[in-house]
Amino acid sequence: MQVIDMHTHFFPRELPDLAGKFGTDGWPRIEATGPTTSTIYIDDKHFRDITRECWDVTARLESMDADGIELQVICSTPVLHQYDRPADHAVEMAKLTNDMAMEIVAKGQGRLAALCQVPLQDIDIASKELSRCMAAGHKGVQIGNHVGDVNLDSEEMVSFFTHCAEEGAAVLIHPWDMMGRERMRNNMTMYSVGMPAETHLTISSMILGGVFDAVPESFRVCFAHGGGSFAGTVGRLDQVWHYGPNGKGKATKPPSEYVDRFSVDSMVFDPRVLEFLVRIMGEDQVMLGSDYPFAIGEKSIGHTVRDTDLSDVAKQKILSDNAKRFLNL
Amino acid sequence: MQVIDMHTHFFPRELPDLAGKFGTDGWPRIEATGPTTSTIYIDDKHFRDITRECWDVTARLESMDADGIELQVICSTPVLHQYDRPADHAVEMAKLTNDMAMEIVAKGQGRLAALCQVPLQDIDIASKELSRCMAAGHKGVQIGNHVGDVNLDSEEMVSFFTHCAEEGAAVLIHPWDMMGRERMRNNMTMYSVGMPAETHLTISSMILGGVFDAVPESFRVCFAHGGGSFAGTVGRLDQVWHYGPNGKGKATKPPSEYVDRFSVDSMVFDPRVLEFLVRIMGEDQVMLGSDYPFAIGEKSIGHTVRDTDLSDVAKQKILSDNAKRFLNL
Repeated sequence: MQVIDMHTHFFPRELPDLAGKFGTDGWPRIEATGPTTSTIYIDDKHFRDITRECWDVTARLESMDADGIELQVICSTPVLHQYDRPADHAVEMAKLTNDMAMEIVAKGQGRLAALCQVPLQDIDIASKELSRCMAAGHKGVQIGNHVGDVNLDSEEMVSFFTHCAEEGAAVLIHPWDMMGRERMRNNMTMYSVGMPAETHLTISSMILGGVFDAVPESFRVCFAHGGGSFAGTVGRLDQVWHYGPNGKGKATKPPSEYVDRFSVDSMVFDPRVLEFLVRIMGEDQVMLGSDYPFAIGEKSIGHTVRDTDLSDVAKQKILSDNAKRFLNL
Repeated sequence: MQVIDMHTHFFPRELPDLAGKFGTDGWPRIEATGPTTSTIYIDDKHFRDITRECWDVTARLESMDADGIELQVICSTPVLHQYDRPADHAVEMAKLTNDMAMEIVAKGQGRLAALCQVPLQDIDIASKELSRCMAAGHKGVQIGNHVGDVNLDSEEMVSFFTHCAEEGAAVLIHPWDMMGRERMRNNMTMYSVGMPAETHLTISSMILGGVFDAVPESFRVCFAHGGGSFAGTVGRLDQVWHYGPNGKGKATKPPSEYVDRFSVDSMVFDPRVLEFLVRIMGEDQVMLGSDYPFAIGEKSIGHTVRDTDLSDVAKQKILSDNAKRFLNL
C-alpha cells in the first residue's frame, strides 16, 4: 500500500526581512540559531522554535521511511499567510514560501507534494497566485479557516473555491487566529479547544452559508484535525437546523447530509474517536494526516488508523486511496 | 422505569424592575405579552420570547406525561445569573428565581426538583445562597461555565466546589456568554458551535487546572449538552497533554482518565453521537437531559437514548439510575 500523509508542514530555515522591505511591522522572521534549529519571531517577539525536519529533505525522508510513509503533502503554516495586511505585500511572502515548497519537492525523490499559500484577503491576487502555483506543480492550496471575521462563507470565497475547482486544486482548510484567545492562555487550550472550535465554525458556516450548494460538485476540500469539533456535535447542528428560529441559513438540507461534499484528515489521536469519525463522515471522506513535524503531531504516523477496528478496505482508503483521489494523483 | 430529565429550564412569567431598584442598566426584564406568552428584554432590547411551559406547572406536567417523564429537574438560565455586576445586587435576582423555583416545585406533585442559581462572582455570597437553597429543598446548583475570563479553574472555584460537595449539592455547568460572538452572528452558530466550544473549554480547564485533583471525590458535577465538544476531541486533549510543551498543566494524568469525575447530559440529538459519547464517558456518566421547553431542545424526550444500540442496562442507567445518584435521591 502506498501510504500518503496529506497534512504535514514545512518552514524555511531562514526568511528575509520583509518588515524592512515594506516598512511595516508584524512580519514573521526566521533566523537560524544552530546547526539544526531556527527560531520564528514576530517582530522581536519569540513565536516558536523549529527543527531541521521543517526544511531538511533528508531528515524528512528518513522520518517517512521510519513510519512507512510513501508520499507526504507539505504546506506552510497560517502564521506565514499574512491575511491582515495589503495583499500585494502578503503575496510576496506567498511567492517566497511557494517557490521554497517546490524546491523541497524537487529534492524529494518523487515522494513529496505541496499545497501553496495565497493572500486570501484579495481573491483576484489569490486566484492568480494559485494558478501560477498549479502550473508550477503544486497540488492545491492550504488556507486559513477565516479571513478577519469572514468564516469562508462569503461570495468572494465562493468565487475562489470555484476557481480552485476549475484549476483542479485540492483545498486544505487549517485553523488559525483562534477565538477566545484571552481565555486560552494556559495549558495549550488554544490548540486543544480553540483549533477544533475554529474548524467547527468554518465547516458549519460553509454549510449553512450555502457554499456547498453554490460551488461545483468537483470542488475538493479537506478540513484539518479530523474536522475539529464538527463530528462530535453534528446532531446539535442538525437540531438547530430543524428547529432553531434562524437555524437553516442557506443550507437546503440538514448539515449532516453535506458530509459527502468534504473530507477531513485522520488526526484525532484516539482509535475510538477515529472509528466514530468514519461513522459520521463515511470511509471515503477521511485521509491520513499527521501534522509532522510539529510537537503535537502523530508519532508513529498511521498507528491510530491501524489501531482501529475499521475494515481493511476502510484502512486502505484512509491511508492511501482517498488522498490519491483528493490530490488527483 | 422512573425516567428523569435532569436538564430543563424555567423562566418566571414576569420579573420586577431591578434596574429601577438598583439604578443600574443591563438587567433582564420579563413582561407578559399575552395569555400564554412573555418576552424577555435586556434594558429595552428584545432578548427572547418565551411560552407558558416556562412557568406553568400544569403545562409542564402535561408535557412530561406525553413523553413518559416521571421527574424533571428545573433550573433558570444564565441570562439571569448576572455574574458581571456587584454580587450583593446579583444575589437579589438569585433569591427571586430560587424562591420561584421552589414555588414551582411545590406545585409539581412530587415530580419536579430544582437547581438554584448563585452570584458566582463572590464565592462567600454564592456559598451562603447555596446553603440557603439546599436547606429550602434545592438539589444543587446550575452555574454558568465561566465568570469573566475565569474558566472555573481558580482557587475560588475550588473552594466553591468543595462547599458544594460538603452541602451534597449537585452542580450543572451550562455554557453562556459565548466566545467568538462577532463571528457567530449568523445561522445560530452561537448555539451550535459556540456553546459546545464553551463547555469544552471549561471541562479542559478544570481538568488541566487541577480542579478535579483538588476537590473532594464526593463532588458531583455534570456538563450540559453532552459535554459540548469534549468527547469528540478527547484524543487531541490527551495528545497535547502528552507532547505539548506546556500541555500538562496541573493534571496528574491524561485528560481522558478524568471522565469518572464528571457526568454529561445526553443532549446530542443523534444516536450515533450518543453511542460514541457513552463509549468515551462510560455508561455511568451520561444522564437524560432535554433543554425543555426551549426550541432546540429534544422533542419526544428520551427518544435519542432509546434509538441507540446501547444495552438495556445502559439505557436504564442513562434514563434513570445515573440521575438518581447524581441528585442523591
